[in-house]
Amino acid sequence: MNRETLRKLLENVRSGKLSIAEAGERLSGLPIDELGFANLDTHREIRRGFPETVYGPGKSIEQIVAIVGKLHAAGQTALVTRVGPDVHSAVAAVHPKSEYAAAARAIVLRAGPKRPARTGVIVITGGTSDIGVAEEAAVTAEVMGEAVKRIYDVGIAGLHRLLSHGTTLTKANVIVAVAGMEGALPSVVAGLVACPVIAVPTSVGYGAGSGGIAALLAMLNSCAPGVAVVNIDNGHGAGCLAALINKRSKTAKTLA
Amino acid sequence: MNRETLRKLLENVRSGKLSIAEAGERLSGLPIDELGFANLDTHREIRRGFPETVYGPGKSIEQIVAIVGKLHAAGQTALVTRVGPDVHSAVAAVHPKSEYAAAARAIVLRAGPKRPARTGVIVITGGTSDIGVAEEAAVTAEVMGEAVKRIYDVGIAGLHRLLSHGTTLTKANVIVAVAGMEGALPSVVAGLVACPVIAVPTSVGYGAGSGGIAALLAMLNSCAPGVAVVNIDNGHGAGCLAALINKRSKTAKTLA
Amino acid sequence: MNRETLRKLLENVRSGKLSIAEAGERLSGLPIDELGFANLDTHREIRRGFPETVYGPGKSIEQIVAIVGKLHAAGQTALVTRVGPDVHSAVAAVHPKSEYAAAARAIVLRAGPKRPARTGVIVITGGTSDIGVAEEAAVTAEVMGEAVKRIYDVGIAGLHRLLSHGTTLTKANVIVAVAGMEGALPSVVAGLVACPVIAVPTSVGYGAGSGGIAALLAMLNSCAPGVAVVNIDNGHGAGCLAALINKRSKTAKTLA
Amino acid sequence: MNRETLRKLLENVRSGKLSIAEAGERLSGLPIDELGFANLDTHREIRRGFPETVYGPGKSIEQIVAIVGKLHAAGQTALVTRVGPDVHSAVAAVHPKSEYAAAARAIVLRAGPKRPARTGVIVITGGTSDIGVAEEAAVTAEVMGEAVKRIYDVGIAGLHRLLSHGTTLTKANVIVAVAGMEGALPSVVAGLVACPVIAVPTSVGYGAGSGGIAALLAMLNSCAPGVAVVNIDNGHGAGCLAALINKRSKTAKTLA
Amino acid sequence: MNRETLRKLLENVRSGKLSIAEAGERLSGLPIDELGFANLDTHREIRRGFPETVYGPGKSIEQIVAIVGKLHAAGQTALVTRVGPDVHSAVAAVHPKSEYAAAARAIVLRAGPKRPARTGVIVITGGTSDIGVAEEAAVTAEVMGEAVKRIYDVGIAGLHRLLSHGTTLTKANVIVAVAGMEGALPSVVAGLVACPVIAVPTSVGYGAGSGGIAALLAMLNSCAPGVAVVNIDNGHGAGCLAALINKRSKTAKTLA
Amino acid sequence: MNRETLRKLLENVRSGKLSIAEAGERLSGLPIDELGFANLDTHREIRRGFPETVYGPGKSIEQIVAIVGKLHAAGQTALVTRVGPDVHSAVAAVHPKSEYAAAARAIVLRAGPKRPARTGVIVITGGTSDIGVAEEAAVTAEVMGEAVKRIYDVGIAGLHRLLSHGTTLTKANVIVAVAGMEGALPSVVAGLVACPVIAVPTSVGYGAGSGGIAALLAMLNSCAPGVAVVNIDNGHGAGCLAALINKRSKTAKTLA
Amino acid sequence: MNRETLRKLLENVRSGKLSIAEAGERLSGLPIDELGFANLDTHREIRRGFPETVYGPGKSIEQIVAIVGKLHAAGQTALVTRVGPDVHSAVAAVHPKSEYAAAARAIVLRAGPKRPARTGVIVITGGTSDIGVAEEAAVTAEVMGEAVKRIYDVGIAGLHRLLSHGTTLTKANVIVAVAGMEGALPSVVAGLVACPVIAVPTSVGYGAGSGGIAALLAMLNSCAPGVAVVNIDNGHGAGCLAALINKRSKTAKTLA
Amino acid sequence: MNRETLRKLLENVRSGKLSIAEAGERLSGLPIDELGFANLDTHREIRRGFPETVYGPGKSIEQIVAIVGKLHAAGQTALVTRVGPDVHSAVAAVHPKSEYAAAARAIVLRAGPKRPARTGVIVITGGTSDIGVAEEAAVTAEVMGEAVKRIYDVGIAGLHRLLSHGTTLTKANVIVAVAGMEGALPSVVAGLVACPVIAVPTSVGYGAGSGGIAALLAMLNSCAPGVAVVNIDNGHGAGCLAALINKRSKTAKTLA
Repeated sequence: MNRETLRKLLENVRSGKLSIAEAGERLSGLPIDELGFANLDTHREIRRGFPETVYGPGKSIEQIVAIVGKLHAAGQTALVTRVGPDVHSAVAAVHPKSEYAAAARAIVLRAGPKRPARTGVIVITGGTSDIGVAEEAAVTAEVMGEAVKRIYDVGIAGLHRLLSHGTTLTKANVIVAVAGMEGALPSVVAGLVACPVIAVPTSVGYGAGSGGIAALLAMLNSCAPGVAVVNIDNGHGAGCLAALINKRSKTAKTLA
Repeated sequence: MNRETLRKLLENVRSGKLSIAEAGERLSGLPIDELGFANLDTHREIRRGFPETVYGPGKSIEQIVAIVGKLHAAGQTALVTRVGPDVHSAVAAVHPKSEYAAAARAIVLRAGPKRPARTGVIVITGGTSDIGVAEEAAVTAEVMGEAVKRIYDVGIAGLHRLLSHGTTLTKANVIVAVAGMEGALPSVVAGLVACPVIAVPTSVGYGAGSGGIAALLAMLNSCAPGVAVVNIDNGHGAGCLAALINKRSKTAKTLA
Repeated sequence: MNRETLRKLLENVRSGKLSIAEAGERLSGLPIDELGFANLDTHREIRRGFPETVYGPGKSIEQIVAIVGKLHAAGQTALVTRVGPDVHSAVAAVHPKSEYAAAARAIVLRAGPKRPARTGVIVITGGTSDIGVAEEAAVTAEVMGEAVKRIYDVGIAGLHRLLSHGTTLTKANVIVAVAGMEGALPSVVAGLVACPVIAVPTSVGYGAGSGGIAALLAMLNSCAPGVAVVNIDNGHGAGCLAALINKRSKTAKTLA
Repeated sequence: MNRETLRKLLENVRSGKLSIAEAGERLSGLPIDELGFANLDTHREIRRGFPETVYGPGKSIEQIVAIVGKLHAAGQTALVTRVGPDVHSAVAAVHPKSEYAAAARAIVLRAGPKRPARTGVIVITGGTSDIGVAEEAAVTAEVMGEAVKRIYDVGIAGLHRLLSHGTTLTKANVIVAVAGMEGALPSVVAGLVACPVIAVPTSVGYGAGSGGIAALLAMLNSCAPGVAVVNIDNGHGAGCLAALINKRSKTAKTLA
Repeated sequence: MNRETLRKLLENVRSGKLSIAEAGERLSGLPIDELGFANLDTHREIRRGFPETVYGPGKSIEQIVAIVGKLHAAGQTALVTRVGPDVHSAVAAVHPKSEYAAAARAIVLRAGPKRPARTGVIVITGGTSDIGVAEEAAVTAEVMGEAVKRIYDVGIAGLHRLLSHGTTLTKANVIVAVAGMEGALPSVVAGLVACPVIAVPTSVGYGAGSGGIAALLAMLNSCAPGVAVVNIDNGHGAGCLAALINKRSKTAKTLA
Repeated sequence: MNRETLRKLLENVRSGKLSIAEAGERLSGLPIDELGFANLDTHREIRRGFPETVYGPGKSIEQIVAIVGKLHAAGQTALVTRVGPDVHSAVAAVHPKSEYAAAARAIVLRAGPKRPARTGVIVITGGTSDIGVAEEAAVTAEVMGEAVKRIYDVGIAGLHRLLSHGTTLTKANVIVAVAGMEGALPSVVAGLVACPVIAVPTSVGYGAGSGGIAALLAMLNSCAPGVAVVNIDNGHGAGCLAALINKRSKTAKTLA
Repeated sequence: MNRETLRKLLENVRSGKLSIAEAGERLSGLPIDELGFANLDTHREIRRGFPETVYGPGKSIEQIVAIVGKLHAAGQTALVTRVGPDVHSAVAAVHPKSEYAAAARAIVLRAGPKRPARTGVIVITGGTSDIGVAEEAAVTAEVMGEAVKRIYDVGIAGLHRLLSHGTTLTKANVIVAVAGMEGALPSVVAGLVACPVIAVPTSVGYGAGSGGIAALLAMLNSCAPGVAVVNIDNGHGAGCLAALINKRSKTAKTLA
Repeated sequence: MNRETLRKLLENVRSGKLSIAEAGERLSGLPIDELGFANLDTHREIRRGFPETVYGPGKSIEQIVAIVGKLHAAGQTALVTRVGPDVHSAVAAVHPKSEYAAAARAIVLRAGPKRPARTGVIVITGGTSDIGVAEEAAVTAEVMGEAVKRIYDVGIAGLHRLLSHGTTLTKANVIVAVAGMEGALPSVVAGLVACPVIAVPTSVGYGAGSGGIAALLAMLNSCAPGVAVVNIDNGHGAGCLAALINKRSKTAKTLA
């Protein structure tokens, strides 16, 4: 229900087409998302931009195929994260247009044709082991309409690798910096650029602070301003954030 | 050194005013921030937008007065965080135009006249105890040029308080959600809006998970997409991030 | 707004006393807690049974006096927790009928005359150091209308102390068991009785597991069924829970 | 020994049938559970209401079959938790009337016919991954005689899903709220209703705070009063508590 | 009630002086510690050997004076731990024979004359900072009747200091080894001797593992067999244990 | 080298049979365990009483067979812990007299005939899941010469089970109390008896505090004096300690 | 670019062969590692001494074979850590000269003939379970040109084993001390020698502090000066450090 | 006793000046550090190079004055760490030549004239708040004979500050890198140089990972080889290590 349908309902009350009792019932019994509050409308609007994301672990292949089918039928883009190629085989049997992003371990089934993407998002990693998480971020942002530039394996143990990309980095609207071990990459990057940096700790490493804890704590304690942190290995969350930021950026350019 | 001074140096080499040996020495020996790399130029550009922030704890009043003086002399806005009114008294004795934001426990000494601010940043808290951290975020963003709307004490134990601000929230470019205890506010807000939400856990609470740990972990584990986390009580970091995001947002409006 | 006022509004629309535009405005713009949803009505109803609790730490005496005054003016019972006698002196200067529960470190200012209480709640402690937290629980439950029986200092290092109260314990509707150190009291009690046991770990102890962590973990790992846990030192929460349970218990008796 | 056998013993002492020495020996040497203290009688009474619960993990199929058989022979209802269908197959070979609750992964073998159940318990989950733990709670409460209403997948990332059940929630005597991730569901629910809420953190999630720690801490730090917490994934404990509370509730209705 | 009073009661039943009903009442209603069970008798016997220990922190001087007075009146030795000389001054004003063990920060008021002590307990420390905890252990054991040999400041950073006491150590019945920092002393000692070693971690140190955690974990992970651990700084517990072991040792000699 | 061989060496120096240089060399170059310090002699003496314990995990079957063979050849009793029946099969192929303690998962190969054992050690568990660790303790103590009484499954959720063994418990010289979950058993036992109690936390349980952490912390924080703690699941260490204590106890009786 | 190429560029500017604009472009746009800063030159120099280390876990056999091939083609020694013999089989099929250090689980493919090694590095372990980590350290140091002396299984539970190597230890330039459990070995060693000691905690052990945490904390809290710590199981890091220290030591001798 | 005095003793035995019994007594009864083992001799030799360090916290001014006096009388340099100027005033009253290093909060009283120092040690910090810990390291190394170069406030948030010191850094024999917050400085430095880097985490920061934990974990997880870690704020340990390494470095130059 929105203001228009509300107006019609009230007109029907005045004209007698609708009894007062029935109108009262419909007004008080409506699910809250039909009451026409702007926030909930916007909420649905978000959902149209946002693909429904299906977190794969803990779901059977049958469940995933069913959910993807339901989303597709509803005209929504489906994004399934953290699944293997076997899951994609099952999905592709039903939806031949679905794609499998192997490095990201994600399935994408677009609701319509690929739209022109906006530039401005850079995804960067410290090492090669961080690439899986980085790809999850990149693919998520791409599904949301961003054109993502990837710069991988430029960790701080060899600073010149990172510095050689200095000019490129300074042109970003938002940078997703993915790193495990000591997790210093986002701090170093944030010291070089003027845009927000989204820090993604990865569970790469061993011993004390393993599982990404050392990287997470380092990122939360960054001495450089402008660093936002997401949970360990949460590439999807980082990609969403990057897209939300880039989407409203006045300096993002839509590619032809 | 910038491209202009570099051009002049090279002209002097061509004209013979400068020996090759001396030119080589100057070029290779220059501090790296004078070499004119775009990223470092941008870096300085950031610094002009960014006030130099002085973290108060652990510094003597004399040190703070001296640093503020130095920044002011260099034509930069000074922001001092986490200091009491006694520190401001000492600063104000030298810089009568400095202001003290009591709730934020911050001193601001602007480099020039207050510029027109951009709308789009909302700072929201769960309880009244979170307001100090929220004000640190708000004042930081204001110093960076944003017009901040504050909505305080709308925690999830009484959802109607939050929902009554639904329309306002959906108009934001970025929302800073500050909460202690179970830290659920950012998740609930992120479920209602389409913009990035910056989650700030506060050290409000006691017992297991006290000191902000429960809130921090809850925010990192948010089931809603689009939540960025900063460290516990890090209002300053959240304010920086919010300003960096809003600053480049095409929907931000500059107030007259 | 409730169904009655909604009905009147709709009648006014039909009769033309109210324009459709204005009715639409009022319906869509109403604060959510005025829309007459049963849950929110109930919510307010709860609040009438529940005194508004003011958590003292971090609030100035002036703030507390002001909040108590506001609650009193609104006809609500005020309960202030974790405050010293100095705070009560300030409150009592304005509200001479306010009472100070010294062991609980709480102030109570009742909205009306003390009502007859319901029997059924027992508060029990392991040691004398746990009494402060236990009293916070007891006073909270009392303010909510329960008659609380206290059994203190019956820790498991001398089981006969506890067992000698066996008959009394088995008559309770709900038992709040407060203990620090190894926190075994709730498990032992839950093995003896048929009613729910609310376990409150206290921050009594030192060394590894201090601050109540050992007791909290022990209570969460209780081998006896029927144990509910609240946070460390959270006497207030335990008292609320106990009252909520006892209040609806068919075996609770109201004292003359 | 009970009061009757005690009386007889004393009569035998008076009549001389029993020597004083022997009587003294029997009285001081009696096992404590034969002394007829009310608490221990009650204890046994509880046990009759409570099915003997067999925690499956770490036990062999043979052991479980044997324990179930022993309980059944003793006329007690048997509840086995956290076992797969293979265990049920083995149990069903001996006890064809045993039932397997697949979602809860529990076996139930009732001692007698199913009794009419009492209304008033609601079990609610944040996501679909929390359903296994929720079913363990629901089945436990059902075995103890409660009629459980299930409301699943109404997490806080889409508040309208939860709010649409508002009226139903406010009619409960006790609500079991099961959630992983940031664990905010119990706080939100407790802010809407007047009855006790039993919070069950689940081990759903990853990264910092995974394994249910984030959810557990959030629940312990709930800003809403009236929240009782059990250990991570402890659906059984929550179901017991809910049944203990509902069983004595004057507003519970027994279904025909 | 003991066997003697039980015998008298039963004689009164036989002689008719006491009705059966009344006897039954008294027998079933007696507090459990009056029923003459061997374990509880022994329990009281222990208490006679064991001084009642009063843990000082959190108690007022008045409370401590009162408790000491009560114990003294009951003919029991009083041991008060973790108190300053000011507390002793107050106690000594009433009980001039009370003694203050300054290094242990303990007050002792003996019930009778000092008894001959048993040899066999050695208390050893790694550093001088551990001496306070060691003295708490030593004084506790002394009050329980042991003659304690102290060997202090023989930490493992200079092994020769420890090894030079080798012969002495091998003659002990039980050794209390007190150490902070890396807590390796008990392991090294247990590798040299045949008697039980009680390891006491102290809260000496700083940084990661501070507060005694590093020492505690090291002691729990000792590669040498025969190491018993108590909580951090728990000198009292270690002293009790050492006395309990030495008391029953056939090789302990009572000094003239 | 001992004092006798030292005397001979010095006589040879005096008589000229040994040059001063050579004597100096032998004296300064001797391995420290040949210098005749009592502690190291005693050390070896201990080793004769103590079976060489082989910790199984991480060793191949071949390695274990080899080590057992070497110990046996040296006339020492061999104890291998935490191994399955397959390891025993391999050992038994070579040493048919070796025995496998299935519940303890230990292999014992005695150096000589089984000696008469000393009474006084009791091993007690909270649940049936703790029996494996308890058996490791019991078998270790038995190999060291103690006759161990086992009392299993007497956890605190049903106190009467424990209390019915009260008399037996009070006769022990040392009690090993093994428990997982909330780990309260040792505290309850220590409140009933006068002898040292060795607390063994087990890794039984799940959720917060799982892996034995809750039980360990509870045991370290025991409110009852006289509790010694070993690491989680460390039955072997507890058994060693119990034997070391019982071995020197004057109240232990050697069975015929 | 180095000083020579810089000189040529400037000469070309003077001679007019290069336009000022183009020269400016090339100077400002150069990757930082071509600017001839000493630190980056040195950096590359380091790399020649240091073999490129390939951390095996998480890489496929194909990837490892490819990386080793690339390093070999570039004339660099390749060191692959934490891989099984199956990986070496695949590498050896291509590079028959590659060697597999089984205990260290490392593959080495030298760039040239084995160079004479420098004495001075000792690697020492507490137990046999620590040998894998110790070998990783030893092999790493050997690949970097050191001759490593190994002293294994000399833990502190039998001090004489360690002390018998006293003279050898005092001759080292650097000692790598590898230990799990309570991790006391480095402290004891550092108390005996004058050279730096590199402490490597291993993940050997179980219960509280397992996974190497107890050993790590103990090493960080060493009471002996001169102890450097690396992460748990980080033999490679320890070997690098030892080689870096020995390499520059004036007392290291190169073997013929 | 050393080899010379041992020789004389044996000569006296041969000549009959010393009885065999007496010689045996002296040899077997000697404290172990007088037996002339090389490791212990070396140990003392270390001590001459190493000043006896007195850790100030927990010691009274009187105790410190006494210890310093004793060390001075023994001809040893005294270093007292973590003390205020008031302690120095008391020491200086007795030892006017003692010096107070205010930034390091250390007192130095040299045993003789200041010796020429060896170059090669650099101490570097991320921020100004780290300088106290850095000075403790620097002063410690200086007392041990090193000439320390300090480079402060060159943290990674502004990389150009660090890079401008590149040439200097590459000339060090050992670098002590001191940093709080995210602790990334040592990793970045180790990526630039060929010498060992000693990482010192400081307790600078707040929120999650505060107290130096984030920095410590980051340093232990450094992705750059050649990083040695000491405990949080342990400047003294880092200074000792740096001196031990530099002392034996062939590239260290002794200043005139």
